[in-house]
Amino acid sequence: MTYKPATQDQLLAIRANARIAELAQSERFAAAEPDLVEAIVEGVGQFAAGEWAPLNRKGDLEGAKLENGVVRLPDGFEQAYQAYVEQGWNAIAGITEHGGQGLPFTLACNVLENLGTANMALNLLPMLSVGAIEALQAHGTAEQQARYLPDLISGAWSGTMNLTEPQAGSDVGALRTTAHLIEDGEHAGKYRIKGQKIYITWGEHDLAENIIHLVLARLPDAPEGSRGISLFLVPKYHLKDDGTPGARNDVRCVSIEHKLGINASPTCVMSYGDDDECIGELVGAENRGLAAMFTMMNNARINVGSQGVQIAERATQQAVAYALERVQSARAGAEDRTPVAIMDHPDVRRMLLRMRSLTEAMRGLLYYTAGQVDRGDVGDANAHARAEVLVPMLKAWATDTGIEVASLGIQVHGGMGFVEETGAAQHWRDSRIAPIYEGTNGIQAADLVTRKLGLEDGEALQKLFADIARDASDEAQLKALAGECAAIAKWMREDASLDDRLAGSVPFTAMCAAAVAGWTLVQQHRAMDDSKDASRKHAKRVTMRFFLDHIVPEAMGLKASATAGASLLYEIDGSVLAA
Amino acid sequence: MTYKPATQDQLLAIRANARIAELAQSERFAAAEPDLVEAIVEGVGQFAAGEWAPLNRKGDLEGAKLENGVVRLPDGFEQAYQAYVEQGWNAIAGITEHGGQGLPFTLACNVLENLGTANMALNLLPMLSVGAIEALQAHGTAEQQARYLPDLISGAWSGTMNLTEPQAGSDVGALRTTAHLIEDGEHAGKYRIKGQKIYITWGEHDLAENIIHLVLARLPDAPEGSRGISLFLVPKYHLKDDGTPGARNDVRCVSIEHKLGINASPTCVMSYGDDDECIGELVGAENRGLAAMFTMMNNARINVGSQGVQIAERATQQAVAYALERVQSARAGAEDRTPVAIMDHPDVRRMLLRMRSLTEAMRGLLYYTAGQVDRGDVGDANAHARAEVLVPMLKAWATDTGIEVASLGIQVHGGMGFVEETGAAQHWRDSRIAPIYEGTNGIQAADLVTRKLGLEDGEALQKLFADIARDASDEAQLKALAGECAAIAKWMREDASLDDRLAGSVPFTAMCAAAVAGWTLVQQHRAMDDSKDASRKHAKRVTMRFFLDHIVPEAMGLKASATAGASLLYEIDGSVLAA
Repeated sequence: MTYKPATQDQLLAIRANARIAELAQSERFAAAEPDLVEAIVEGVGQFAAGEWAPLNRKGDLEGAKLENGVVRLPDGFEQAYQAYVEQGWNAIAGITEHGGQGLPFTLACNVLENLGTANMALNLLPMLSVGAIEALQAHGTAEQQARYLPDLISGAWSGTMNLTEPQAGSDVGALRTTAHLIEDGEHAGKYRIKGQKIYITWGEHDLAENIIHLVLARLPDAPEGSRGISLFLVPKYHLKDDGTPGARNDVRCVSIEHKLGINASPTCVMSYGDDDECIGELVGAENRGLAAMFTMMNNARINVGSQGVQIAERATQQAVAYALERVQSARAGAEDRTPVAIMDHPDVRRMLLRMRSLTEAMRGLLYYTAGQVDRGDVGDANAHARAEVLVPMLKAWATDTGIEVASLGIQVHGGMGFVEETGAAQHWRDSRIAPIYEGTNGIQAADLVTRKLGLEDGEALQKLFADIARDASDEAQLKALAGECAAIAKWMREDASLDDRLAGSVPFTAMCAAAVAGWTLVQQHRAMDDSKDASRKHAKRVTMRFFLDHIVPEAMGLKASATAGASLLYEIDGSVLAA
Repeated sequence: MTYKPATQDQLLAIRANARIAELAQSERFAAAEPDLVEAIVEGVGQFAAGEWAPLNRKGDLEGAKLENGVVRLPDGFEQAYQAYVEQGWNAIAGITEHGGQGLPFTLACNVLENLGTANMALNLLPMLSVGAIEALQAHGTAEQQARYLPDLISGAWSGTMNLTEPQAGSDVGALRTTAHLIEDGEHAGKYRIKGQKIYITWGEHDLAENIIHLVLARLPDAPEGSRGISLFLVPKYHLKDDGTPGARNDVRCVSIEHKLGINASPTCVMSYGDDDECIGELVGAENRGLAAMFTMMNNARINVGSQGVQIAERATQQAVAYALERVQSARAGAEDRTPVAIMDHPDVRRMLLRMRSLTEAMRGLLYYTAGQVDRGDVGDANAHARAEVLVPMLKAWATDTGIEVASLGIQVHGGMGFVEETGAAQHWRDSRIAPIYEGTNGIQAADLVTRKLGLEDGEALQKLFADIARDASDEAQLKALAGECAAIAKWMREDASLDDRLAGSVPFTAMCAAAVAGWTLVQQHRAMDDSKDASRKHAKRVTMRFFLDHIVPEAMGLKASATAGASLLYEIDGSVLAA
């Protein structure tokens, strides 16, 4: 179960898909020179593999435990997190005014990719902190930024996102947690928060010195639904005058979930204001919490999409290692009846090549998306719009594909794959959360066929597919898929009812993602140096061809589903499906 | 989590796909009159739902435990198994000479379908016993049959299948367990067995009074590989002269696996002959064990395919119940902003209809296959050949699809789906074993494109697809899929290399299965009475249309993969895939 960071393929994707050299030409990202980029990607890869990966199985076995209100993690987790903070990895993309390195989001993505491949459960701690940092950078006052950002950016403190309540899941607007302005006294101008939040990732723990909860709540007399939601900052420990953590705030973890996977990530039920003494501060404007939340969520969705890459990379490495070692049966039809490594059997090889090809394609899509985010951040409106349409594709397709790859990893192991000791099963269990959180994949697909479909009068999507068709015009099947995606998008925008669009949204999203992901492999292959990189370029040609010749036609097979419309779905009463 | 047996849909599949009325015209199955069939399907469905289903979650939570060589099951399992035996459900298909009811395999399938939907882990106990019964019926001497069959058929005793050893998984021929003829003394004419077997389902337990292990082993000087394997019967307890269990044989469970799922099914490492006192009897001819094993495995593979149906039925019922109850968000685009049950949202409805449609189609394929087995058993050679080609399709496709449906079940539950308490995750975990055991799905696909492809000079497959194309000629897409399957089969048989066939075997198998399964829904719909069954026929039309309009085109998308050949797979060294 040794794991090796995919440094070379990451550098390739950062170079060919994010096109980091272009980014480094902007003043803001001038520091992202090739040497620094390489140092970061290599450094964090080695750190994650060396310090975090060995705790992955232990975290699964022992899990997070709640004891008298305190969340206990397996031995080694605190040191692993501390080492991460001390080495400065958390500060890659934070703003320089508050101690960040101000580097592109692309590189922050790479840090999380490496950490998450090593240890998905622990990686959720810094990953969720990013949301708090981004929310404060975008919506906090100068004073809030000065008080909270330095320690969040360094990682000394962690952050959480508190959206969900039992009755308010995908429908965030249904939340009931309340916030009341405090008129006078010590906390005048702040708010008294009261309510219960569920599914709060790393909601309670002792790995960081303080936890900064970002909490969606409702002011008195706020409009109903999502337009009446405001964002509050609730620290676990109040800050003393010198800015260090002081007295405990009235917020506690009342239980943690027993989950299918990511067992070392405490998923908390958080109770705010049991004693009516939970104090929070407003972040951004009143009733504008949902917009602030989307600020956090867009990049969070990219990082969840990245989890598909992560689990796939880890599962692939483990399956390949097993297939090279496990000897079973002679090659079919061979005269030599000596048993061979199972890697040599055609169907095992097909599974492994599929795993590798999908992993690399997901990675291409991840860094292509991240590069568009960075361009958007330095003022490129087209890139911003493109990132907007890419995010739901990446989040939905890569998380579904991560499960597929992890499942193939089990299959390659045969009976051993079903035995927990092997570790292949953990990847599959861990992978299953990613299509659910940060907006289910159904919500991603709905986002694509509603809000994103109309961006730039529909041109945001059309330009993407036109770029693919033009740039990859030699690849007939990829070009055809891009053409179908464009045609379906046009139909959805011009002729389909809202129900029809939603009914076809998930298969349509998968088709679009496969088209873009396939394109990113073409970009990668093209960017590789024939002489310097000959053997790696040859391998890339194989994974690219597998994707174009196997995965792209499969994606084409989703066309009927994407365009079938909703009428059949409503021909029977839902209860008829019961039995 | 209440569960309702799918009695009506089972009866439909038995009527329309197995065509039980035709079977009842043969002398052997004359007892399978409509009233009896209905009584069995209803009876076992109610028994399973009432007695076995409530133990499913408990079995998952507590699991099987090994304590001082004794396997302990959760409270209630012994009573549940005893009630099953007492009510006679185990004896449905056993031969009448030894207490069986001699009914068609189709009905034995139905018993296992119902039991397994209720409790997949416990159902493995009778399911594995079937293999022992069939092996003895086909290959045992009259004396062996008389001594062992009555209690195996009643279920008072259980049976196991012992194939796998650490170095001999898919390559059964690599096994090393030995058998030595005992020349004289009490056990003269019997054999001393020595070796270790792994992955032995229900290898040790106290639910039955005796356990009859069927063990593959090697005689001294036997030919190498699979032609040197013989089948032995090893009872846990030696039989006394009166035929009742007596002294303990030298066979023990040395450990049980910690698995991803089916936790209440003890998966045992069995040690035979630690004290050189393990006594077994030869079953069938020397060195003909592999053939005997295939006797057991063919029907076992059908019953594993059935587990795809089972897990899908259970997961679908649970997801539908949740979707009817869980209220979240108003309908998109509706003026009325009142939140609705999530069943009413298009994508949730799509997921549920997909689950239901796939479940019914798998069931159709299951009973179509079972009906062909029964016809083969009464001498219909064409049906026998058809069953042979159907078995790998059913086993591979239904088990993969079972996972897909269980995964959709999690997705419908959103965050709740990832919390173990909900129970949706258990179905998914349980489902993952089925593509692995009884021959991995890769082995099934290899069987289809090698041994089965050539049956009747290739006509066994060609006639199947010709029947579909003719019978479902109104359904253009299904007809086209059957045509593609026929063309690929022809290419594989006539032009493709063995490697090319194997490289395309898994997608080809899935395409074939989808074609047959779609056809069985057409058969079902056609068999329904317009006036008597109007509302059920309307619902069937919807699930059939979903399958034909969504699933069939997706299967068509596998064509490129099925025909791509092997050359790309071998362009790079396997180690290149490592990282």
